[in-house]
Amino acid sequence: MTRKEIRLDFEREARLGFGEAALCAQKTVAQIEEILRQAGDARAPFLLTRLDEEKHSALAPEWRERLDYHAPSRTAFFGFAPETLAVPCVAVVTAGTSDAGPAHEALRTLEFNHIATTPVFDVGVAGIWRLMERVDEIARHPVVIAVAGMDAALPSVIGGLVPGAVIAVPTSAGYGLARDGETALNACLVSCAPGITVTNIDNGYGAACAAIRALRAMQMVAERGSVVRAAE
Amino acid sequence: MTRKEIRLDFEREARLGFGEAALCAQKTVAQIEEILRQAGDARAPFLLTRLDEEKHSALAPEWRERLDYHAPSRTAFFGFAPETLAVPCVAVVTAGTSDAGPAHEALRTLEFNHIATTPVFDVGVAGIWRLMERVDEIARHPVVIAVAGMDAALPSVIGGLVPGAVIAVPTSAGYGLARDGETALNACLVSCAPGITVTNIDNGYGAACAAIRALRAMQMVAERGSVVRAAE
Amino acid sequence: MTRKEIRLDFEREARLGFGEAALCAQKTVAQIEEILRQAGDARAPFLLTRLDEEKHSALAPEWRERLDYHAPSRTAFFGFAPETLAVPCVAVVTAGTSDAGPAHEALRTLEFNHIATTPVFDVGVAGIWRLMERVDEIARHPVVIAVAGMDAALPSVIGGLVPGAVIAVPTSAGYGLARDGETALNACLVSCAPGITVTNIDNGYGAACAAIRALRAMQMVAERGSVVRAAE
Amino acid sequence: MTRKEIRLDFEREARLGFGEAALCAQKTVAQIEEILRQAGDARAPFLLTRLDEEKHSALAPEWRERLDYHAPSRTAFFGFAPETLAVPCVAVVTAGTSDAGPAHEALRTLEFNHIATTPVFDVGVAGIWRLMERVDEIARHPVVIAVAGMDAALPSVIGGLVPGAVIAVPTSAGYGLARDGETALNACLVSCAPGITVTNIDNGYGAACAAIRALRAMQMVAERGSVVRAAE
Amino acid sequence: MTRKEIRLDFEREARLGFGEAALCAQKTVAQIEEILRQAGDARAPFLLTRLDEEKHSALAPEWRERLDYHAPSRTAFFGFAPETLAVPCVAVVTAGTSDAGPAHEALRTLEFNHIATTPVFDVGVAGIWRLMERVDEIARHPVVIAVAGMDAALPSVIGGLVPGAVIAVPTSAGYGLARDGETALNACLVSCAPGITVTNIDNGYGAACAAIRALRAMQMVAERGSVVRAAE
Amino acid sequence: MTRKEIRLDFEREARLGFGEAALCAQKTVAQIEEILRQAGDARAPFLLTRLDEEKHSALAPEWRERLDYHAPSRTAFFGFAPETLAVPCVAVVTAGTSDAGPAHEALRTLEFNHIATTPVFDVGVAGIWRLMERVDEIARHPVVIAVAGMDAALPSVIGGLVPGAVIAVPTSAGYGLARDGETALNACLVSCAPGITVTNIDNGYGAACAAIRALRAMQMVAERGSVVRAAE
Amino acid sequence: MTRKEIRLDFEREARLGFGEAALCAQKTVAQIEEILRQAGDARAPFLLTRLDEEKHSALAPEWRERLDYHAPSRTAFFGFAPETLAVPCVAVVTAGTSDAGPAHEALRTLEFNHIATTPVFDVGVAGIWRLMERVDEIARHPVVIAVAGMDAALPSVIGGLVPGAVIAVPTSAGYGLARDGETALNACLVSCAPGITVTNIDNGYGAACAAIRALRAMQMVAERGSVVRAAE
Amino acid sequence: MTRKEIRLDFEREARLGFGEAALCAQKTVAQIEEILRQAGDARAPFLLTRLDEEKHSALAPEWRERLDYHAPSRTAFFGFAPETLAVPCVAVVTAGTSDAGPAHEALRTLEFNHIATTPVFDVGVAGIWRLMERVDEIARHPVVIAVAGMDAALPSVIGGLVPGAVIAVPTSAGYGLARDGETALNACLVSCAPGITVTNIDNGYGAACAAIRALRAMQMVAERGSVVRAAE
Repeated sequence: MTRKEIRLDFEREARLGFGEAALCAQKTVAQIEEILRQAGDARAPFLLTRLDEEKHSALAPEWRERLDYHAPSRTAFFGFAPETLAVPCVAVVTAGTSDAGPAHEALRTLEFNHIATTPVFDVGVAGIWRLMERVDEIARHPVVIAVAGMDAALPSVIGGLVPGAVIAVPTSAGYGLARDGETALNACLVSCAPGITVTNIDNGYGAACAAIRALRAMQMVAERGSVVRAAE
Repeated sequence: MTRKEIRLDFEREARLGFGEAALCAQKTVAQIEEILRQAGDARAPFLLTRLDEEKHSALAPEWRERLDYHAPSRTAFFGFAPETLAVPCVAVVTAGTSDAGPAHEALRTLEFNHIATTPVFDVGVAGIWRLMERVDEIARHPVVIAVAGMDAALPSVIGGLVPGAVIAVPTSAGYGLARDGETALNACLVSCAPGITVTNIDNGYGAACAAIRALRAMQMVAERGSVVRAAE
Repeated sequence: MTRKEIRLDFEREARLGFGEAALCAQKTVAQIEEILRQAGDARAPFLLTRLDEEKHSALAPEWRERLDYHAPSRTAFFGFAPETLAVPCVAVVTAGTSDAGPAHEALRTLEFNHIATTPVFDVGVAGIWRLMERVDEIARHPVVIAVAGMDAALPSVIGGLVPGAVIAVPTSAGYGLARDGETALNACLVSCAPGITVTNIDNGYGAACAAIRALRAMQMVAERGSVVRAAE
Repeated sequence: MTRKEIRLDFEREARLGFGEAALCAQKTVAQIEEILRQAGDARAPFLLTRLDEEKHSALAPEWRERLDYHAPSRTAFFGFAPETLAVPCVAVVTAGTSDAGPAHEALRTLEFNHIATTPVFDVGVAGIWRLMERVDEIARHPVVIAVAGMDAALPSVIGGLVPGAVIAVPTSAGYGLARDGETALNACLVSCAPGITVTNIDNGYGAACAAIRALRAMQMVAERGSVVRAAE
Repeated sequence: MTRKEIRLDFEREARLGFGEAALCAQKTVAQIEEILRQAGDARAPFLLTRLDEEKHSALAPEWRERLDYHAPSRTAFFGFAPETLAVPCVAVVTAGTSDAGPAHEALRTLEFNHIATTPVFDVGVAGIWRLMERVDEIARHPVVIAVAGMDAALPSVIGGLVPGAVIAVPTSAGYGLARDGETALNACLVSCAPGITVTNIDNGYGAACAAIRALRAMQMVAERGSVVRAAE
Repeated sequence: MTRKEIRLDFEREARLGFGEAALCAQKTVAQIEEILRQAGDARAPFLLTRLDEEKHSALAPEWRERLDYHAPSRTAFFGFAPETLAVPCVAVVTAGTSDAGPAHEALRTLEFNHIATTPVFDVGVAGIWRLMERVDEIARHPVVIAVAGMDAALPSVIGGLVPGAVIAVPTSAGYGLARDGETALNACLVSCAPGITVTNIDNGYGAACAAIRALRAMQMVAERGSVVRAAE
Repeated sequence: MTRKEIRLDFEREARLGFGEAALCAQKTVAQIEEILRQAGDARAPFLLTRLDEEKHSALAPEWRERLDYHAPSRTAFFGFAPETLAVPCVAVVTAGTSDAGPAHEALRTLEFNHIATTPVFDVGVAGIWRLMERVDEIARHPVVIAVAGMDAALPSVIGGLVPGAVIAVPTSAGYGLARDGETALNACLVSCAPGITVTNIDNGYGAACAAIRALRAMQMVAERGSVVRAAE
Repeated sequence: MTRKEIRLDFEREARLGFGEAALCAQKTVAQIEEILRQAGDARAPFLLTRLDEEKHSALAPEWRERLDYHAPSRTAFFGFAPETLAVPCVAVVTAGTSDAGPAHEALRTLEFNHIATTPVFDVGVAGIWRLMERVDEIARHPVVIAVAGMDAALPSVIGGLVPGAVIAVPTSAGYGLARDGETALNACLVSCAPGITVTNIDNGYGAACAAIRALRAMQMVAERGSVVRAAE
């Protein structure tokens, strides 16, 4: 594991508005420590994702104590400076208990990027009254991240009721024909509700980045005045 | 074909900010005409997509003459009232000549919803200088729709260079392992550039709707001031 | 095409309560005519399915005039004797216009077997108010056939609201990742609403047969009194 | 793991006639305990499925001692009140020894809902005399759950011999092209015997719920008299 | 189309006991004519398969009149010398009407190689009495070719009842999850009846060649006396 | 684990000429012991397959000591009586070292059924001289079992050189696009050498049963004299 | 069809050593004519591939007469200047008659780039003597393009016998499990002969480009002297 | 484990210019030791690949001490004699940290065959400036091995910029729709940059062998003078 085998993209923050993050699932402990070393040298805050508890425990104590680790989302913050957050711009909605992991990954990624969020958990359509109770609250957010596995009917129903950006995160919940999330993903892609976009399976991190992009788009156009007709 | 077999969702415009559209590919001529009849009765502008030239020609003349038909996108406008458009908010970028169809579908859907666009055609990464020449122009748009088939490397490269919302439309261009667009779609979903979201294959219409959602999100939050740090 | 290449199962009516039917899609005109000849000899009413208009027209006039043909369902009745029907026991519900074909196939198969039906068309979840308006009516039927393509969210929502038997018929509506109905089928199989059962793609005929089986089950057990607690 | 991350649907019993159950396979021990806590507070009987022995052992003793656990089916009853059962309405038939798990899951779910059952094990078609010996007994049940993996020929043969509702549960028995149950599932979906419906792979729980729905359908229609012609 | 682009393997007859045949489906008319020219020059009898009627009609009359063409099997014999056949050694059994094509291909290939056959058509397991009536007759053949599509339960049932070689030919009959024969093929490969072997989808020709190989195996070992215990 | 959950098919030996065997991979230790108990009671020799070393060790000593266990093939003989064998009728040929497991399973199954064999290992086509050295020896066997993974080119080359029955056993050797043996299986099914038949992946047991069937076919026809022309 | 929708990469010749080519399969006639117009303006020789006869006929005569069209390969040369060729550096070898199309595409692409070739047709391994006769001749070429469909055993056998670069082109020849060339492709990718590389299905053009790249590599290193040990 | 079960192809070095190597992933420790024994007897240098650390540790000490083991590549050299290397002919380029394993396998295989290399790590297109900085250096190598997982956009971009042979190695990096490397592989196969060839997933060994073949091709043609026009 030599230093030159890893080359981080520290200019991403300036280019895209959010920094590079490291997906730890297929990285060795040595590789993760080298990444932290380079981030430390660059004085860049850094986000680790898919860091399971076992691998987190295997990091050298000097690194581990500099991390803010959160087990349900398998994320760790390095060099994170909290800020007072504005009103929530992103609602993160889940269908069932087994979808909690990717939802937490999205919530933590947004927190790391100083975006306030509203979590709405366990409102799947099998008992649709749970969703209907909260749909007006959800619809007030400019961006909604809808996290669902199995048949992923939730994003379709939300997409038919909510005017803002809807980002679907299919999850690997379920078994058999759930195919580790492929059925959920395909159902989201062919949703009968138009204008839903989709991320990779369980990709709460990517959904959060997409939300940041959509929110940034706002700022780019804010000074131009209204560009679309409002939903009445 | 009785009237009650079709029930349009004319309240969608009020709920979501864009009206219902009819995907004509699997509909009969009789069904399409009934849809237009109901739209006419409701005095609702209506968009037809995937209307190929043969089926368009088979419509009764009384309907055909009330349509603004555009062959490259296979779309038709019904009851469309043009507006003077603002500065372009959406760039629609294609990789190759065979990606033109879905790109035109997106452009027409945005036009129907009174959003100004910038088309940037034929800038695939096999000759990456074509993209590099125009990347600054593209990056000024709050929303970029990247349309590409085959290996779909274009959205990844754009995603690494552009800060706004990036919506990838994989296309069915190519043959063999292109698998009618599945390889392009999968490549977009696992893009190494974070925060890209994806639509169904060839779904220019859906990408345009997603762009409208993202632009609407802006308005919802505009009065709140800045919510994310700007890319410097 | 000799006579002995086809051997019909005329004892099925006695065994199962509904007769054999012929799926015409992959049969030649000569094979279909031989089937009708044997059915005529046996004085057995007979149902033809997947008989498209072109193949119907190619049948010899002597056979064609003895058929009651219905184009939207691609079915034909041979030797059918209408009966006065009881109150409707099966609701056939569709999500969108492109799901009409399999729904009509189910409706005609039930009619051929003298079961009264209630069709409820075009109530997909993208505009969920259309379904909510009619859900109480649907729930009064002991059997509901839910016909939906693309993401097939409709059967899940119905399954969460209706206490009787719910049979999902996924359809080949849609394109791209709809995969000719596989995504709809998989979504039905992993539905978050429990107790939904599923048929092959576009298999309105099979769903109708399953409905007949479920209704027959009633008669087998009717004399035994209540076997399950009623939904209150 | 906070309380609000889990929201149970206790109104399901009233709506559908059977209560919510928790699929434990992808839930953490903390999540399962929170579910039991809420069920205990609501004084609702509750069913746990896919609870393997290891996870069962990891539950806190206070919860474990309130559970009626059954290892072969991986199910546990919470707050279950036995009832004297009526004559069996559901036959649960398996092809081979490796299909026993999902069959037990169906049997236990039916028991939890106070439905009497007849198990018929190990009668696969490779030695078809085993099935033929018992086919008359099976045919007397209004609902038959046929559990089979590999080529799943059993449901097809049963479907050709039995007039009541036939619910096929494909299983993950087998290796290689058995593809963890997909081949069995597909074979059931395209069965040559009409009117068979299908559940997800290994989904004994879902088949039992479908059986309850079919039995309830009976009660809804019982007072109306005969709706279909009896098999003679 | 030059002569040297085609090189036939006329030594195959001596090596394997059956000559080369040409699969015409993807060959041009010019290629087929060149093949017949070379076969004529070599005075070798030759078998054409998958020669549809349209392509057959497009052959030059001089070639067409030298062919013995059979439309249901899409085969043609060139230079064929009939022989008086021995008692039938191969039973060719089909499940349904749509399986007739590959069965005829097998029957014709065996006829071309002077093997007597017994066709048994339309005995699928949905009405299993049709098979049971003839199972003793089938079991007297040393080789059974079982042709079935959809769920392909027929080869499994035969495999459990017949002691000789059982060669399954899955067919492309069916629709939806039949997947053009893949489900039938997979079901055959994972059959619960042991010792069944399988060919490609619709490959009646290959099954016939396999039967010839199995019959030849007999002759190779005949002089050695009994090698296995007889089924009693 | 009650006795009636397992019902063995002891009549198979009389019907098919080889007895039932138990695939142990998905069976519990309790189920395997019950099977042995029933076989012991019936005084039937019995074959266990896919019995890995760990599960073998977990059997009660009283059963373990009555088994003839063979680790490379993962098979065990119960109640086996050796016989003096005739000249070898079956050649079992492998492509590479990783194909040894299924080959051993075939060899042991044949030994259990008193068929003499010739093993020919490690003659894959990447160094085709190894196969060419032994092809004449192989061709003298009436039945050849060709065991190969990855691209499975070996059965095609053998099929072009050997006149007897050729049974291909694709194996799960390889990685990536080898797809656990599916590529090998598909390559065998579409082999350019005609008359090859195929078993499930790694199914050495099934190939051996098929060989027994083919050898038995010989005896059924031996008295009838020559049925096919000999390869010269 | 406006001019700016197509942007050719005329600098490719200088960068890569071979110019851009247009895959015509999914292009309209208008798009192809615009491409030729731009190529004509730039005085760049241009290659069209996948131009079927029907589309070729539909081009305006002024363009058609400037093309050198070749039907078996579906290619056309525009502005091509023949050169006297050196000794052949690339052997193009096919397995069967149905593989001729992609082989011709490779041969024509090499001719367009002034590379001499040796075609070796119809030497598939089912009659391996045909290949063995010519293997020494093939092995003298620095680059071998092996074109084969179905089981694609040919590239593996060649790869074990030939020391130079071996580029496999899987083809869509075959039916059923050939899966339009996927089985051939996968078999090539997992070939037991090491160092084979693979192109997309039927991609004769890409194989030719890869051959040009390999040959160019020679020139880049020629002056450095020997870099690898010669095969003795 | 008897000696004759393994037959190595020691003549491969003479035929192809590189010796046989053993893929250890599916081999037992006993098989690997037998391979080393035979290699030792033949005094042939030998390469082991996919030898993970656990299996390496399980080898007998007498073998282990004769191996030069390298954990990141999971390779071991046996009987290796280092040579002074020439200037680098092969650049091995990776997209991300998780692609390092296959890249190291390629580097070690080339080292074992005495080819000098240039590693260029972590230059994926999400931060394309990292690649652009080094593209001129990469382009000077006659052969480039491009190693990338996920969307594998790197080989396409390199293929558009580099004139020599480009061999893509898709890797199993990523999750969800990355499908263990299939998406990367498919994206490489349908790359928009022409003339790229592809190996199996993670097959660094195969890519190195292909590089050796391409370099050898050079020597075969070196004496003939220039065969292609140089990129200017």
